[in-house]
Amino acid sequence: MRGTVLHGAGDVRLAEFPDPAVRLPTDTVVRVVASCVCGSDLWGYRGISPVAEPKRMGHEFVGVVEEVGAEVTTVRPGDFVIAPFAVSDGTCVHCRNGIHTSCERGGYWGGQARVGHDIDGGQAEYVVSPFADGTLVATPEVPDAALVPSLLTLSDVMGTGHHAAVAAGVGPGDKVVVVGDGAVGLCAVLAAARLGAERVVAMSRHADRQALARTFGATDIVATRGDEGVAEVRDLLGGGADAVLECVGTKESMDQALHTVRPGGRLGYVGVPAGGPEFPVRHLFSNNISVRGGVAPVRAYLPELLAAVLAGEINPGPVFDAEYALASVADAYTDMDNRKVIKPLLRP
Amino acid sequence: MRGTVLHGAGDVRLAEFPDPAVRLPTDTVVRVVASCVCGSDLWGYRGISPVAEPKRMGHEFVGVVEEVGAEVTTVRPGDFVIAPFAVSDGTCVHCRNGIHTSCERGGYWGGQARVGHDIDGGQAEYVVSPFADGTLVATPEVPDAALVPSLLTLSDVMGTGHHAAVAAGVGPGDKVVVVGDGAVGLCAVLAAARLGAERVVAMSRHADRQALARTFGATDIVATRGDEGVAEVRDLLGGGADAVLECVGTKESMDQALHTVRPGGRLGYVGVPAGGPEFPVRHLFSNNISVRGGVAPVRAYLPELLAAVLAGEINPGPVFDAEYALASVADAYTDMDNRKVIKPLLRP
Repeated sequence: MRGTVLHGAGDVRLAEFPDPAVRLPTDTVVRVVASCVCGSDLWGYRGISPVAEPKRMGHEFVGVVEEVGAEVTTVRPGDFVIAPFAVSDGTCVHCRNGIHTSCERGGYWGGQARVGHDIDGGQAEYVVSPFADGTLVATPEVPDAALVPSLLTLSDVMGTGHHAAVAAGVGPGDKVVVVGDGAVGLCAVLAAARLGAERVVAMSRHADRQALARTFGATDIVATRGDEGVAEVRDLLGGGADAVLECVGTKESMDQALHTVRPGGRLGYVGVPAGGPEFPVRHLFSNNISVRGGVAPVRAYLPELLAAVLAGEINPGPVFDAEYALASVADAYTDMDNRKVIKPLLRP
Repeated sequence: MRGTVLHGAGDVRLAEFPDPAVRLPTDTVVRVVASCVCGSDLWGYRGISPVAEPKRMGHEFVGVVEEVGAEVTTVRPGDFVIAPFAVSDGTCVHCRNGIHTSCERGGYWGGQARVGHDIDGGQAEYVVSPFADGTLVATPEVPDAALVPSLLTLSDVMGTGHHAAVAAGVGPGDKVVVVGDGAVGLCAVLAAARLGAERVVAMSRHADRQALARTFGATDIVATRGDEGVAEVRDLLGGGADAVLECVGTKESMDQALHTVRPGGRLGYVGVPAGGPEFPVRHLFSNNISVRGGVAPVRAYLPELLAAVLAGEINPGPVFDAEYALASVADAYTDMDNRKVIKPLLRP
């Protein structure tokens, strides 16, 4: 079977792997129906993070169960399943606390489990899922093909945008700013609107992303950045935002976020810190600004968000604005890297 | 009338000031019944913060209203009032958001108002309170003398300890660690117990403070610090605390706090940052640890905590373990500086 491997900066290719098989009684073999490329996949591709050795890629996928290990009880062959971007056993203290990304035995797709064997990447034809009961979530029935993009967002971007909104305590009546107009930022707009925000300001300079943000519930768009952007937001919201959702992870985006939140307001952040500064304790202390967030425990949110998608309450699928055959995975990386597409969906 | 002035490191004295008078229609003259010395007063006294010019001291006091300006409506001559450590107008957007410490026109006792005249210090015989309606809180009737110490804690330390617990989201069943056994830390123990914490671990090396912490609701005491202290707490609580209340503000105490909180847990911090590090964004991100806190908006908590004191639900007064006449204010500073007393109460 074929899977995607990143060999170094700008060099991503398919490779042939042994046919997937259950190795541990908690494993499950999944035939991938759709996967995608994540902004964080580009770090190695762009040479920002060094690629020490060839790496299996892809941490977002949905698919159909082909085979289950003897101890798997929650999914069966034929089930359509959603894979959160982190593997978790579902039973350790951190999983029970809802922080599945800190699972004592889990890990990330394409990486290594803290306990157990290496974990397959999701940009592939098949994936062997460890800890299937603690990781995968099955839909009640095999969904309509039209729903696949929205279900795939629950692997990462929708759950991550939702985490930003939950971390920032977004609730009815709040004035919210979203920093970042990638797929996560757009999903954060959707999440904030769903949680009852009265105003949702999307900071975006791209017409297509601005339009999608409006569709997702943004009430205002601010295209300026830096001090000018801060001033425009503060003016628009009468002194600053109740909650700011930081969905990028750079120094610039974090500064923008920190200065648009009002005294006593909340910063929810999910952008993977990429050279960003440490949090400025005196600024936070003087203004009683809270910071909460991190690597999203998407597994914890899956039941709630799956129900919302199936009920038609949210439709995050349009963050995928281009589809590629798995054989063209290199084109998908190139087009995302060039910002030609927001988020590419891959079909094996 | 006499008030306390800090002239430089180790040099605190009473000075004579003009008799207090209403200058603005929102002013109120208060005869001080009791005030006290705060850990933060020692910064200048110890020479840690430079004293550029003589500074009027004291930001915690209770007293009786003597005279009110024409626009004051919520307090009357004869009322017993509690002064939060910050002056606030009660009407600006930040006050309406409950963040009175960010008041657009307020300031701190002994300092300058953002709008208006200088503000008197509380370690004095009289104080002119600006924005009396937005700042002072009157008790329903003149309280019994025995209640004065507990009411005085509502000026700062009890409200600040409560803020740490609220910021850390302490609720029923939580396992809580309190770092710091000064008056604020001890009040944080009391606040956490009141909010329903199941376990409250007080980190303290002093027998008298350990005993008071027990009285206030600590279920466990940990006397070790550093890595050993972290290990002991994690062992005691099975992996880390749901909430950690940081009540000191040094690098050591913040490190202690950051490493005793579990993944997904909450750090509430109220220790004024004194040379502490910035918050380590990657540690927080990877572990989904939230940080919230800052200079406590004690005015916002006063009605709730006043009711709790008057109902006998909490009795924080014992944090005052020594009383001094105002004339002996220099002794109060010396004894607190030498850790001979936890917190000195001053009687004019």
